[in-house]
Amino acid sequence: MPELRKDPVTGRWVIIATDRARRPSDFSREPVPPPGSRFCPFCYGNEQKTPPEILAYRHNGGPNCPGWSVRVVPNKFPVLGIEGDLDRQGDGMFDRMNGIGAHEVIIETPDHDTDLSQMPEKQIEEVLYAFRDRMLDLKRDHRFRYILIFKNFGEAAGASLEHPHSQLIALPVIPKRVKEELDGSKLYFDFKERCVYCDIIRQEEASAARLVIETERFVALEPYAPRFPFETWIMPIRHESHFEHTDAATLQNLAWVLRSTLRKMDRVLEHPAYNFILHSTPVQESELTYYHWHFEIIPKLTKVAGFEWGTGFYINPTPPEESAKFLREAGAA
Amino acid sequence: MPELRKDPVTGRWVIIATDRARRPSDFSREPVPPPGSRFCPFCYGNEQKTPPEILAYRHNGGPNCPGWSVRVVPNKFPVLGIEGDLDRQGDGMFDRMNGIGAHEVIIETPDHDTDLSQMPEKQIEEVLYAFRDRMLDLKRDHRFRYILIFKNFGEAAGASLEHPHSQLIALPVIPKRVKEELDGSKLYFDFKERCVYCDIIRQEEASAARLVIETERFVALEPYAPRFPFETWIMPIRHESHFEHTDAATLQNLAWVLRSTLRKMDRVLEHPAYNFILHSTPVQESELTYYHWHFEIIPKLTKVAGFEWGTGFYINPTPPEESAKFLREAGAA
Repeated sequence: MPELRKDPVTGRWVIIATDRARRPSDFSREPVPPPGSRFCPFCYGNEQKTPPEILAYRHNGGPNCPGWSVRVVPNKFPVLGIEGDLDRQGDGMFDRMNGIGAHEVIIETPDHDTDLSQMPEKQIEEVLYAFRDRMLDLKRDHRFRYILIFKNFGEAAGASLEHPHSQLIALPVIPKRVKEELDGSKLYFDFKERCVYCDIIRQEEASAARLVIETERFVALEPYAPRFPFETWIMPIRHESHFEHTDAATLQNLAWVLRSTLRKMDRVLEHPAYNFILHSTPVQESELTYYHWHFEIIPKLTKVAGFEWGTGFYINPTPPEESAKFLREAGAA
Repeated sequence: MPELRKDPVTGRWVIIATDRARRPSDFSREPVPPPGSRFCPFCYGNEQKTPPEILAYRHNGGPNCPGWSVRVVPNKFPVLGIEGDLDRQGDGMFDRMNGIGAHEVIIETPDHDTDLSQMPEKQIEEVLYAFRDRMLDLKRDHRFRYILIFKNFGEAAGASLEHPHSQLIALPVIPKRVKEELDGSKLYFDFKERCVYCDIIRQEEASAARLVIETERFVALEPYAPRFPFETWIMPIRHESHFEHTDAATLQNLAWVLRSTLRKMDRVLEHPAYNFILHSTPVQESELTYYHWHFEIIPKLTKVAGFEWGTGFYINPTPPEESAKFLREAGAA
């Protein structure tokens, strides 16, 4: 059973993934096999090599057979276990609980050799539906307080399998970074009686210096104080706190904006590795006036080093006004 | 002039290093030249290739000539500028100030082909003296609220020059991560009337499960909730809030503990890339009963990916009890 442990100074929780325990020799880097040379458990015909599917959109075939367009399965090496109780307890002066949660893989397409930026819009839409459907299902389990959806694309961004996929982790605690965003936006709301993200969107639409894409329903922009070069946020223009409440027409527009943003990054940064993270309200909360869901996309261009680890203070060598200009001017076709 | 910008939601400051501004094409990775093939500005005879030295311990020769054992120079590509005023101001709803600060390089030895774990103890002691001397000098400038000392060793940990060196950055704000530690340890003190780090040391000495090295003056240990495999902290046993107040005998012992810890890591992890960060009290504060300076050493073994960026929540595949056992049992000779 993995274990959650709390740092007694900062209150940061850490997952000690005992089931994946690694000895020192496991950290030496294996050479990466060339694309296509490895067996892929996410391709058609290999459905039996993953744990049984939780969700699949399919045009033919039965469960755990070919014929699907998007397929969601439990992670074979989950960082958290789905069964059991949290069993919060002390350990001397320290605090721990069992690592209860869900860890799922969203297989975005049967096509091994594509990626999100190259897929048809319709396919991306289905991936977004899968995000929504899994969140709606998992939030019924009241042990889960936060559901994180993210994607690691490319080895440099932490991906270990090349077949296009995203991941979902449902957590029994609200992570520190999420809590900071919630607290910060609450503070702003208490002071201004407006959502800070709504204010950001209005200001960025007016100045346009950091805007990348603007549609009727979404903006893609470079934030004012980005941690990383070409860090890009995608935000719904209309205030909405929960991603999982998004309607079909909005998801359709989001698919277009997400694809266009990734294509622009591909064009400007030559197909970079990246992470994207969905920031949404803790699932057990009702509608919040002060929090606004959004995606953060971080291309992996720089290394995080001692300064950043020591301070939580980032050095970004590219002003967001410049990266926005590069992305605006790049084609998305 | 670099610029400090504040994220309006989380309050995190970011350095937008306009002087180092990088265009998209600058991010493509150049091949790393083999060791020894590059000109090194930190070697004997090349003193004129760095900005003039701020401090040098030398057995012969004049300023900016060979004959030194440790040499401190301004970083040639500083992320912050030393001249000017902060000039805090708004930018619509956002907040910015000028990037005022100091960015120095501590050249740890004239010997290009060694590193901290291989140096004589005496040499490491001199490096620690240089840390202390630079902190004592810079804290007289009241614009600086925090002085960060850190080392990036190895390309994977962000080092761009191979000659052994550490870095110092003096900042006009207290970084978020430092403030979290201060706030967290203050909260603990308010509740218990004891320093949380002193309590950690006592508990770890009693259980010994996570101890790596114990001397009369220091412990090296694996923290209870480490973010990374083999993350190791070195703490003075006697309560002391400011590193720069450390006396000579203590620095001497620290040199031995630091060297032994790095040697154990070399042995177990086959000479890993690593970061170390000195965590000390903001320099303008007087003695604090609730904060305790320490070093954090993070070998670079795993990749930080979307999950960690999204949550500030870390997945660590190696329980600290196991890494402590490996390090305890490894020789330091």
